[in-house]
Amino acid sequence: TKYSSKDIGFLGVPFAAGQSRGGVEHGPAALRDAGIVQKLGYMGFNVHDYGDLKFDHIFHDPPDIVKNPRSVGQGAYQVSEAVKDIISAGHCGLTIGGDHSLSIGTVHGHCQAEENVCLIWVDAHADINTPLTSATGNVHGMCLSFVVHELQEYIPDIVDFDWIQPCISAKDIAYIGLRDLDPGERHIIEKLGISCYTTHEIDHFGIEYVLKKSIEAVNPNMDRPMHLSYDIDSLDPAISPSTGTPVPGGLTIREGMYIAEELAQTGLLHHIDLVEVNPLIGTKRDQNLTIFTASEIIQACFGKRRRGNVDPNYKLPIPE
Amino acid sequence: TKYSSKDIGFLGVPFAAGQSRGGVEHGPAALRDAGIVQKLGYMGFNVHDYGDLKFDHIFHDPPDIVKNPRSVGQGAYQVSEAVKDIISAGHCGLTIGGDHSLSIGTVHGHCQAEENVCLIWVDAHADINTPLTSATGNVHGMCLSFVVHELQEYIPDIVDFDWIQPCISAKDIAYIGLRDLDPGERHIIEKLGISCYTTHEIDHFGIEYVLKKSIEAVNPNMDRPMHLSYDIDSLDPAISPSTGTPVPGGLTIREGMYIAEELAQTGLLHHIDLVEVNPLIGTKRDQNLTIFTASEIIQACFGKRRRGNVDPNYKLPIPE
Amino acid sequence: TKYSSKDIGFLGVPFAAGQSRGGVEHGPAALRDAGIVQKLGYMGFNVHDYGDLKFDHIFHDPPDIVKNPRSVGQGAYQVSEAVKDIISAGHCGLTIGGDHSLSIGTVHGHCQAEENVCLIWVDAHADINTPLTSATGNVHGMCLSFVVHELQEYIPDIVDFDWIQPCISAKDIAYIGLRDLDPGERHIIEKLGISCYTTHEIDHFGIEYVLKKSIEAVNPNMDRPMHLSYDIDSLDPAISPSTGTPVPGGLTIREGMYIAEELAQTGLLHHIDLVEVNPLIGTKRDQNLTIFTASEIIQACFGKRRRGNVDPNYKLPIPE
Ligand SMILES: [Mn+2]
Ligand SMILES: [Mn+2]
Ligand SMILES: [Mn+2]
Ligand SMILES: [Mn+2]
Ligand SMILES: [Mn+2]
Ligand SMILES: [Mn+2]
Repeated sequence: TKYSSKDIGFLGVPFAAGQSRGGVEHGPAALRDAGIVQKLGYMGFNVHDYGDLKFDHIFHDPPDIVKNPRSVGQGAYQVSEAVKDIISAGHCGLTIGGDHSLSIGTVHGHCQAEENVCLIWVDAHADINTPLTSATGNVHGMCLSFVVHELQEYIPDIVDFDWIQPCISAKDIAYIGLRDLDPGERHIIEKLGISCYTTHEIDHFGIEYVLKKSIEAVNPNMDRPMHLSYDIDSLDPAISPSTGTPVPGGLTIREGMYIAEELAQTGLLHHIDLVEVNPLIGTKRDQNLTIFTASEIIQACFGKRRRGNVDPNYKLPIPE
Repeated sequence: TKYSSKDIGFLGVPFAAGQSRGGVEHGPAALRDAGIVQKLGYMGFNVHDYGDLKFDHIFHDPPDIVKNPRSVGQGAYQVSEAVKDIISAGHCGLTIGGDHSLSIGTVHGHCQAEENVCLIWVDAHADINTPLTSATGNVHGMCLSFVVHELQEYIPDIVDFDWIQPCISAKDIAYIGLRDLDPGERHIIEKLGISCYTTHEIDHFGIEYVLKKSIEAVNPNMDRPMHLSYDIDSLDPAISPSTGTPVPGGLTIREGMYIAEELAQTGLLHHIDLVEVNPLIGTKRDQNLTIFTASEIIQACFGKRRRGNVDPNYKLPIPE
Repeated sequence: TKYSSKDIGFLGVPFAAGQSRGGVEHGPAALRDAGIVQKLGYMGFNVHDYGDLKFDHIFHDPPDIVKNPRSVGQGAYQVSEAVKDIISAGHCGLTIGGDHSLSIGTVHGHCQAEENVCLIWVDAHADINTPLTSATGNVHGMCLSFVVHELQEYIPDIVDFDWIQPCISAKDIAYIGLRDLDPGERHIIEKLGISCYTTHEIDHFGIEYVLKKSIEAVNPNMDRPMHLSYDIDSLDPAISPSTGTPVPGGLTIREGMYIAEELAQTGLLHHIDLVEVNPLIGTKRDQNLTIFTASEIIQACFGKRRRGNVDPNYKLPIPE
């Protein structure tokens, strides 16, 4: 079974209410301006552009147990519906954020459209605080808690979050690149036995082993559609400085590309999120570098390889 | 046997006479200002603050065979006495430099207070020139030669160094991260058979293997108290630029944290030196980055992990 | 059999016509100014300085199927003759570029002077486009196609290139560090079965394995003279920014040094090219860093080691 496709459903999600820094809502425009749609086209894909979602501004959205609950809850619902449509149309989904809270929607929508989805979460953070363990109230740090079956008894009612149906089990999640975890998150990962390779384990075992084991953990028979949620802050700030919550000691661009290239080769990636590019943070050089990095990672997720790509029917030209 | 403790004896050593660049004497203040004492407190340690040592200014200190012999000799003696007190009090010692010549004192004092100490030396440099092989006369590049038993016949008499009793054998030392060695140092390492993994060997074998072998070399039965002397210049200048003798091609911040995290897990670290942060070198960004890096390394030496830390009795909160 | 020698034939090639950016012709002067000749002298080599080649300016050199055909063709011929002389004189050749098109000459000249040469090509690029597959017409991206036997039927006639005699077989070439390949290049590498370890394979297997396999591929009995062609753009732009076609995700300075150090230890390196340093690109800091990096790589190619170097007869001085 292969889930990859020559058809990409491209969705921009200019969404920032899951965190506190302005600018991350400009991520989709920045990647569009960098030509990501055209680049995927040159690679031979049919890119079905679903545009950028438009969110009603919610004038009165006081904090509940989380910040901006109505904005996040309603926004993630729109994302979920859009991704459900994209997957249902037989496309491979590509969602550009926006902050990571939108992945409540992408994971939810993906799971609505097909069964048996597994999840690779590449991030500096685990994003699995519950609203009760979070120290900040920012939903981008808790998005997984809302969709994981085993955590539902720990989730309080939140306005406009009631549409969410948990759809992923702990055994279906594999973390790669983590290095900044809250105590509650560490507790949850151990309690639920979630596959988790932090940068410490990458130092120890190398990226090849870590990625292989991560895939085996969630997709042992290589028959499940895979959802890749790629937070740009998984990468080292040296090559992705323009992001809201950078953490030193991240993945090298090479490790980041290795993950993307190898996952692309599985033919099982069915939806990709690329989130947390904030084009307003840092110098112009920082911004261009971060956008370039994100663009390269996306292309690698869709099959661009450092070894080069060539059509199997390529004929080497002969002089006349 | 475990040597780690919930009690830290914290000592600042604002000392610069072992080398030639101004500013390294401000290392302790910079790390205090960055909140290192409080951070260790939040981690659950009782931090016993022994303050910053005060050194009499020595107005007449012409070079002997080394530079600033009286300043260094008398200063290291003060350090030795202070560390002896800290270890004797049952604390885990943490000494913040200052230049690396202070480690004459920390190693000496540690060995006065307890037997069977072994030493992990993380550095770009071997710091084992004798006064007769040094090209510079800077004691921070010769500190080990004064305390290693096997080198004593090669050490000339130096004013105010006569109190030093050699206390470490070559077999008790493991080097990690070296990459800039003088000919005499290379000769000594081979002649004495000191365990030495340079960055070349880390490239070859990986940090996991190198650290494991280094620990086995000096502590095969995992029963000896360990002294970790961590020169910030072991790390790559990209993440620790504000230091007096930077050498390109250093440890990544991840390798640096891996070493610290793993050594912390042994439960055998009994004294840690963190030296050669020079908060006057480089741009403000360089300085903040170096201090941040040093602060993270220190916390990792005391148990902070990238996988997260949580109390074993943590209870995940349940909504009311 | 050993091909290394205490005699180095040093050749500067201030040549830029194989590509489109001004400045790379200043590479030899920049490395001379950085003291590379003296440094090799301090290491104990007899450096025979063949000076910098002088190239007649060709006023009328309109593009053929490649850019600047007469300038490149005639220039590479001069390089070939000079390198033939250096190798024939029994020296170890060291050619400093200039752009990589000069390696048409170094490889050609080397193969004229001795039989059985094999080639290690360290680069971000494969430089093996034919004139008909190149998208740019820049010869520095096609230099290998002119000297590889198996490609001759694909090479059109080009003015002033008719002196080139193909002299290397596909099985004699090992690529390391590639990460930006054109479709035609990918096709050629697969079709001819050229040994090729991109950064992806270095991520997967580590540099130790990759280098060992690369050497085995071209020199299984360790009896052939080796030609090392080292493009500075193989290294990451973080440590070699001043180059004309930088590609993110390059070799770390440590990997770059590992390759150089290990190849030096074989005793089989008989000619080294160091190319594509462009001292006019970037900030002053970028330029100094790139030149420093190049200088360190060159020294490592001639035996400088991170573990330190010491004469086997060194005597540790004893106090009187
Ligand atoms: Mn995230
Ligand atoms: Mn994150
Ligand atoms: Mn040191
Ligand atoms: Mn040092
Ligand atoms: Mn090249
Ligand atoms: Mn190149």
